[in-house]
Amino acid sequence: MAASTASRLSPPRFRAPSPSLHPPIRRSRFSPVRVAKLEAVLSIGTHLIPHPRKAASGGEDAFFANSDAGGVFAIADGVSGWAEKDVNPALFSRELMRNSSNFLNDEEVSRDPQILLRKAHAATSSVGSATVIIAMLEKTGTLKIASVGDCGLKVIRKGQVMFSISPQEHYFDCPYQISSEAVGQTYQDALVCSVNLMEGDIIVSGSDGLFDNIFDQEIVSIISESPGVHEAAKALAELARKHSVDVTFDSPYSMEARSRGFDVPWWKKILGAKLIGGKMDDITVIVAQVKTVVVPEDEGGDTEEQKGNEQGAAAVVASAE
Amino acid sequence: MAASTASRLSPPRFRAPSPSLHPPIRRSRFSPVRVAKLEAVLSIGTHLIPHPRKAASGGEDAFFANSDAGGVFAIADGVSGWAEKDVNPALFSRELMRNSSNFLNDEEVSRDPQILLRKAHAATSSVGSATVIIAMLEKTGTLKIASVGDCGLKVIRKGQVMFSISPQEHYFDCPYQISSEAVGQTYQDALVCSVNLMEGDIIVSGSDGLFDNIFDQEIVSIISESPGVHEAAKALAELARKHSVDVTFDSPYSMEARSRGFDVPWWKKILGAKLIGGKMDDITVIVAQVKTVVVPEDEGGDTEEQKGNEQGAAAVVASAE
Repeated sequence: MAASTASRLSPPRFRAPSPSLHPPIRRSRFSPVRVAKLEAVLSIGTHLIPHPRKAASGGEDAFFANSDAGGVFAIADGVSGWAEKDVNPALFSRELMRNSSNFLNDEEVSRDPQILLRKAHAATSSVGSATVIIAMLEKTGTLKIASVGDCGLKVIRKGQVMFSISPQEHYFDCPYQISSEAVGQTYQDALVCSVNLMEGDIIVSGSDGLFDNIFDQEIVSIISESPGVHEAAKALAELARKHSVDVTFDSPYSMEARSRGFDVPWWKKILGAKLIGGKMDDITVIVAQVKTVVVPEDEGGDTEEQKGNEQGAAAVVASAE
Repeated sequence: MAASTASRLSPPRFRAPSPSLHPPIRRSRFSPVRVAKLEAVLSIGTHLIPHPRKAASGGEDAFFANSDAGGVFAIADGVSGWAEKDVNPALFSRELMRNSSNFLNDEEVSRDPQILLRKAHAATSSVGSATVIIAMLEKTGTLKIASVGDCGLKVIRKGQVMFSISPQEHYFDCPYQISSEAVGQTYQDALVCSVNLMEGDIIVSGSDGLFDNIFDQEIVSIISESPGVHEAAKALAELARKHSVDVTFDSPYSMEARSRGFDVPWWKKILGAKLIGGKMDDITVIVAQVKTVVVPEDEGGDTEEQKGNEQGAAAVVASAE
């Protein structure tokens, strides 16, 4: 359920200088003098808490995390509406994550998260649909992201959210989704973006069960207090879970619902009631911290063959089955 | 004050297929059959309304927009606190924009907005500081962004905000800023990110005077109703201006202030008052729409020399002087 390779999160280093992984002056990684170079890698912690009523079956979220070649992770959130058609919504999301892990070092994928999504989707045989996010860190420190739907990703630097992705949806609570059916979205509908990261940056990614139940300031606070990525992922999931079952908590989800015009009936309003509460859901959290490792100049650049042999060596493909 | 090369914004095309500018299967732009290829370009509309009390001097925002090589734009917002030291806050922001325009086709810049920011900053001689954003569209449809501070940028696709950048600040209302002084931020502190755009996508960028006074839903609504990028930029600036001087408008700025613990004195609270109102400021708006142009395969790929000759051909460097 949880995987971590990290020991301790750097404390928030407000205005402390961070070594940029993108030295803008030196355009080539090959300097005349053969010195050591810095490569970015991710320490990844994960935590999944299923929906309270789906704990026995493990819920419908799935994820994978892999420290291969800098670091890759992905989350898929199976769309629960399929249960009404007697389809287990977990099968599609789990297969999508298995396929993503399997194709990770495919030559055609070439470390492009959008192509990985295309291949993983094309290889599914289950019926169902899922929101999905895939993120890959380049050795240069660039995080490449492909996302369909409302899985979230935020980057925290020096104690503030400095990057986050927007959800895509057809209408409130109906996100874009990769589907077994032709009516769904495909890799071509993905939000595809990238952000240059620095040593110490923290990535917080999750299914909507996380971001519907926790505010940015709570995320920043937990990150600053956590000793490591594993502990941070667990603490974030547990706070989101606590809020999700709290009918008195004015969650991001209930605030968003009210702003879209959803509300309690008029007679409840007269009694002073308002639409409020957390959102019960599967909650998947991935916390990753950017670290740098020093690599002698002539040891960089794995060959394709080397990469192939490492495939899946550190992979965690997981759901809460 | 305003520059436009567009005729009509595409109406919001909810779920209509958009031709992706990133065909993920074909990895090389050189296919065996020499056919025409698509290149992305920006139609850019701009509008600047100075702070009501700074109209005579033109305010302290500055911007430039240039249709060269796909499209580039930038905004700088001079930090007004310099006026207390008898420094005109507009001088630094205007010089930063002039320099950015001048270095646009510099070989070292190589279409990297972060390097352009470094060179433009290094070449300033004015005293002062400014928040700044620089955005460049690649012919492939990738928008590259470097931002220091709280200028904003959002991308609207199919009637929803699908990408936006986060402001960076030291504390409420004190943004990161490029400065003539050593205590300020540099290009190394910039948020550097990119997003893959599709034909029809609309970029809305502006100084904080825009985003402090207008909500996302208003932006989406104005974009959907505007006949072109020029009209959209003007309408957005005018609505933000209207809100900025409205002491009864619960603006994004006043909501943010309350969420950070700012409020009216306790005795006003007892009388039912709350911290509310727009934020008077210079308001700069840039609206850009992604279009595709068909280029015969063997006409692509300007040489460096060609690019150099085109320098500044379509540039607009502006403030409201």
